[in-house]
Amino acid sequence: MALRPFHVLVAGHGQLAASMVGAAEMICGALPGVSAIGLEPGESPEGFEARLRAQIGHDQSTLILADLHGGTPSNVASALARADERLRVIAGANLGLLIEAVTCTDELDDAMIERLVRLAREAVVDASTQLGTRP
Amino acid sequence: MALRPFHVLVAGHGQLAASMVGAAEMICGALPGVSAIGLEPGESPEGFEARLRAQIGHDQSTLILADLHGGTPSNVASALARADERLRVIAGANLGLLIEAVTCTDELDDAMIERLVRLAREAVVDASTQLGTRP
Repeated sequence: MALRPFHVLVAGHGQLAASMVGAAEMICGALPGVSAIGLEPGESPEGFEARLRAQIGHDQSTLILADLHGGTPSNVASALARADERLRVIAGANLGLLIEAVTCTDELDDAMIERLVRLAREAVVDASTQLGTRP
Repeated sequence: MALRPFHVLVAGHGQLAASMVGAAEMICGALPGVSAIGLEPGESPEGFEARLRAQIGHDQSTLILADLHGGTPSNVASALARADERLRVIAGANLGLLIEAVTCTDELDDAMIERLVRLAREAVVDASTQLGTRP
């Protein structure tokens, strides 16, 4: 696999981000350049922001995948991204989005963000009658 | 909150499903009528199916939210749903979908599934420049 030119950081409530990375690793194997951060119960946005800053790669771009638009992890990440053009944030992450993101080999530009948002939306499926094709 | 007329079961790889329920409970408080099941590393589809069957409510409908269309949890759930009209499956779940599902008070019919799929897709947002409004 060619080197992905950006870091991926999953940010969520409680254990959700770490578990999403763990689920992706069950499917894809070890994922270098991917990390997770969880808002702890009762943690302040300021405390979370300090920990989030410490996890952002300073030598390359970072794509933050947040669990819920409007939740604290997403809001804190969005605020940082408005002040740092190397940061991008997609909220409403599902496992399909994470897998698409970690297998990217292109730059983290507007077209890539648009493509990932579209793929994450297409990954939501009424599966009652459709059988998936992923091995 | 009026009684939701169906059970919600989140199904995923590893700890993802349980962590998604935990994240929703951080936001919404305790969620009665909601459970989680995780495919364990190395577990067979047959073993997972047996455990999934045991967690399905037999006195009411169940909405299964699976983490990844085409993954084992989704495929096993879809196969069960094709034989039992009280089961519905949405794959590609994100936290926004779970929160929408648990706050439903209507019947689990085609219109409800269509609405939930739409809401889950709309929950995926390029959040680099948009601030969320959820408290």
